[in-house]
Amino acid sequence: MSKLVASLEEAIRAAGLKDGMRISFHHHLRNGDFVLNMTLALIAKMGIRDLTVNASSLFDSQEPLLAHIKNGVVTELETNYMSPVIGKAVSEGILAKPVIFRTHGGRPGAIETGVTPIDVAFIAAPTADNQGNCTGRVGKSACGSLGYAFADAMHAKKVVAITDNLVEYPLGDYSISETYVDYVVKVDAIGDPEGIVSGTTRMTRDPLALRIADLSARVIRASGLLKDGFSFQTGAGGASLAVGQSVQDIMTREGIKGSFALGGTTGYLVDMLEAGCFQTIMDVQCFDLKAVESLRNNPRHVEISASHYASPGAKSSASQNLDVVVLGATEIDVNFNVNVHTDSNGYIIGGSGGHSDVAAGAKLAMVIAPLSRARLSIVVDKVLTTTTPGKTIDVLVTQYGAAVNPLRDDLRKELARVGIPLKEMGELRKIAEDLNGVPEKCERGSRVVGKVLYRDGSLIDEIYQVKEA
Amino acid sequence: MSKLVASLEEAIRAAGLKDGMRISFHHHLRNGDFVLNMTLALIAKMGIRDLTVNASSLFDSQEPLLAHIKNGVVTELETNYMSPVIGKAVSEGILAKPVIFRTHGGRPGAIETGVTPIDVAFIAAPTADNQGNCTGRVGKSACGSLGYAFADAMHAKKVVAITDNLVEYPLGDYSISETYVDYVVKVDAIGDPEGIVSGTTRMTRDPLALRIADLSARVIRASGLLKDGFSFQTGAGGASLAVGQSVQDIMTREGIKGSFALGGTTGYLVDMLEAGCFQTIMDVQCFDLKAVESLRNNPRHVEISASHYASPGAKSSASQNLDVVVLGATEIDVNFNVNVHTDSNGYIIGGSGGHSDVAAGAKLAMVIAPLSRARLSIVVDKVLTTTTPGKTIDVLVTQYGAAVNPLRDDLRKELARVGIPLKEMGELRKIAEDLNGVPEKCERGSRVVGKVLYRDGSLIDEIYQVKEA
Repeated sequence: MSKLVASLEEAIRAAGLKDGMRISFHHHLRNGDFVLNMTLALIAKMGIRDLTVNASSLFDSQEPLLAHIKNGVVTELETNYMSPVIGKAVSEGILAKPVIFRTHGGRPGAIETGVTPIDVAFIAAPTADNQGNCTGRVGKSACGSLGYAFADAMHAKKVVAITDNLVEYPLGDYSISETYVDYVVKVDAIGDPEGIVSGTTRMTRDPLALRIADLSARVIRASGLLKDGFSFQTGAGGASLAVGQSVQDIMTREGIKGSFALGGTTGYLVDMLEAGCFQTIMDVQCFDLKAVESLRNNPRHVEISASHYASPGAKSSASQNLDVVVLGATEIDVNFNVNVHTDSNGYIIGGSGGHSDVAAGAKLAMVIAPLSRARLSIVVDKVLTTTTPGKTIDVLVTQYGAAVNPLRDDLRKELARVGIPLKEMGELRKIAEDLNGVPEKCERGSRVVGKVLYRDGSLIDEIYQVKEA
Repeated sequence: MSKLVASLEEAIRAAGLKDGMRISFHHHLRNGDFVLNMTLALIAKMGIRDLTVNASSLFDSQEPLLAHIKNGVVTELETNYMSPVIGKAVSEGILAKPVIFRTHGGRPGAIETGVTPIDVAFIAAPTADNQGNCTGRVGKSACGSLGYAFADAMHAKKVVAITDNLVEYPLGDYSISETYVDYVVKVDAIGDPEGIVSGTTRMTRDPLALRIADLSARVIRASGLLKDGFSFQTGAGGASLAVGQSVQDIMTREGIKGSFALGGTTGYLVDMLEAGCFQTIMDVQCFDLKAVESLRNNPRHVEISASHYASPGAKSSASQNLDVVVLGATEIDVNFNVNVHTDSNGYIIGGSGGHSDVAAGAKLAMVIAPLSRARLSIVVDKVLTTTTPGKTIDVLVTQYGAAVNPLRDDLRKELARVGIPLKEMGELRKIAEDLNGVPEKCERGSRVVGKVLYRDGSLIDEIYQVKEA
C-alpha cells in the first residue's frame, strides 16, 4: 500500500505521462534545484515529447531545459519568472510558441480553475514519508515553505513527490498531505543546499541604496500606515532589506506593534518578528537559512499557499490585507507602469513573481529604484514590457525624491506636509536623460516570444523576439 | 474589504441562500453546538424552505431541527451519525425522503466529487479573524480539531464562518484558510463549553468491561502488530479506553515505540503520546479538554482533515495505514456484519461515523462488546442494519472469548497459540440466546426512512420506519 516506487523513471511511467501533456514544478529549491533537470532528463530518455512545462519559476541552473526544448521534449513553457540564461534563449526565439508568463497569485488561480490543467506535478520534497506527506521544514535540502507547490499538489491529476529525506510514516509536521500524492520517490539529492537558500541574505552597504531606503522609510511613515497593526512586505534585494531595517528602527523606537510580514522571507524579517515588530510572518517562500529555521521552530512564522498569498481566485488573500509593499523595477515609466520582465535590450531577465499581485493588493505599493543603473535610465517614457500596471503603483522613491501617482493626491499631500522631496515623473525622466542620454529605442523583431498575463489571466503585454545583433 | 457582516441573517442573505438548496454543518461542538440551531431558526424566520441539511453528525441538542422538518424548512437530511432523539423522529417517519447516511470518510469524498454539492457551509469557528482564517484550538468554545469541516470549507459555493472569538487579522495559527471563506459573523456564543467537550473522559470501572479490555489487549499483542511502529485507534467509550490503558501498559513495560494514534482523541491518547508510546497523534476530532490542550501545544499532535483521516476518494488516508482499531457494536452477526445504526427495536440511535472506514483500513479491526446489554443479545443471527460489512472485521472480543473471522485463519492460529480463549460466532450467539432468550423479530414498516451508504457511496442497507406500538 506504500506509494514508494523504485525510481523516478518508474514514477513517470506509473503516472502515465504521455506526449503532449503538461507537467509542473515549483521553485522553492531555487538555483539549487535538481528535480526539474533530473525529471526532464529521464523523460527525454524515455522518448516522451511535446510537453508543456508549467514551473512557478525557472532558474539558470535549469539551463539543461534548453536542450530539451531544442530536441522537442518541451515545446511550451508557462512560468512566473525566468532568470537570464533561460530568458536569453527564449528571447532569441528558441520556442515556436510564446512563453506564458503568469504571476505568483495568478498561477494557482489558473491551475485551480483548469485554465492550465496539470497532468503530472513533480514536487521537490525536502522531507516526505512513504505515503507522500511532505514538508520543506526539515531535511538536508530544507527550503522552508512549499507554498507555491500547494496548487500543483491539490489539482494535478497525478502527483509525484521526490525526496532525499524519506522518513517513517506519518510525517506529522506535513505541509502537503498524502491525500494529494500518488507516488513517492527517494533520490540521493533533490538539490544543492548552497543554491537552495543563501547562508545569509546581505544588506546593502551602497550609500546610494541606503539613501533611497532611508527616504522610503520616511515615505512609509508619512503614509500614516506605520502604526499598530502595520503589515509589510519587502524583497530580498539589498535596498529592499535596508528599507526593512529603517522601518524596524522606527517601529522599535516608537513601540509600534505590527500585525504581519508577508511574502518571501529573509532573516531580516525574522529579526523583526523576534523583536516584536510583527505578530506573524506569512511565508510562501524562504530566502535564507534563518527563515527556514524560524518557520521550523517559531509557531508565529506560518507557511501559506500561493493562493493564500495572492490568488485573485481565492475568496481573499493576505496580499489584499497588506499595508505596504516595497517593490523593485527594471524600468518604470511616467505612467507608473513597471517592467520587471525585460531589460533595455529587450531580453527577458525576470518576470512578475508576486510583483503585480502585491501591488494590486497593498494600500501603499512603492517602487524603489535608483534613477539609473549601469548608465541606463530606470525612469523611462514608456516601459518596454508592462509587468505591473501603473494604476496599482502609488509611489516611486529614487535618490532624487519621491514621485507620487496622481491617483494618490492624498498621499502626495502627506509627503509634502512632512517635507519629503517630491518630484514629478517627467522631472525624474528628464534628470535620468540628462545623466544617461536619451535611451536608444530597443529594436525588436515581430515575433511574439512571451505573453504576459496579468493576475486575472488577461493579456497585459507581449514580449517580442530580440533582433540579432 | 473585510468579510465581517453584521449578523448571521445578513450572511445568509449575502450567501444567496434560496429554497431547495443544500447547507452543511460540522459537529465538532457536539452536543454543545449552537450554530445549527441558530442558523435554522433564522432561515425559518426568513421564509426559506425545502432545504437539504448535510451535517457530519447530529446531536440531541439539535432537537429544534425537528420543528424545522415539520414546517418544511428542512426536507432532506444527510449525516454520518444521529443521536437518539433525532433518530427517534426519523425512525417514526418525520421526513418524506430517506435520510442519507454516509461515513466520516465517505462524506468528504462525496462533497469533493460533487455527489452532494454544498451551496452554503456554516462553519462553527471557535476563533476566526475578519477574513475567515479559522481555528478550533483557542477561544472560549475551543473544540480542537476542525477536521470534518475542511471539505465543507474547501468545496461549498459559499462559506460562512461563525465565531464567538473574533481576533485581529491574521490569525496565524489557522486550520481553515481565508481563501475558502466568504463571510464572517461574530455571535455571543457558538456553543456551550460543557457540551462541546467533556472535562475529562472517564475510564470504565465495570469489571466486565475491564475483562473484555484485558482480553482485547492480549489479542492485539498476539496479532504481532504491537511492536515498534505500531499505530492505533480506539474510541472514547469506557471499555475502548480501557483497551488503550492495557495497550499502554504493555508498550511501556516492553519499551515499544509506536508511530501514530488516530481518530477522535481523548486525554488517554494524549497520555500515551506524552509517555512516548506514539510519535504523533493525527486528530480529526477532540473529545475532551486535555486533547484540545495537547493539539494546541504539542507539535506532535496534529490536526488532519476528514479526507486525510479516512476518505476513499483521497489518494491515501491515515486509516489505510492503521494497524489496529478498537470498535464498538450495537449488534454483530454471525457473519461479522456490524450494526451501529439501529437498536433492537429498529430505532436509529447512531450511525457509522468512522466505523466502517477504519474497519476497512486497519490491519486488525476488532469489535469489542459484552455478549448482552440490558438483557439483549449483541451477537445475533443477522444484524438489523448493516453499518460495516463483516469482511472488514477481523475479530470480536467478548467476555467469553474471541471469535475470529474465518477470513483470518492466520490470526486465529496466533490467538490459539498464545492461549486466548476462542469461540465460534455460532457458539457466542447460542450463549447469548441461552442468556437472553431468542430475540423477538423486530417488526418494521415498509417505508424506507434511511439509506445507509457505504464509504464508497454504494448502498449497503436501508432502514425502515418503525411500526407504531
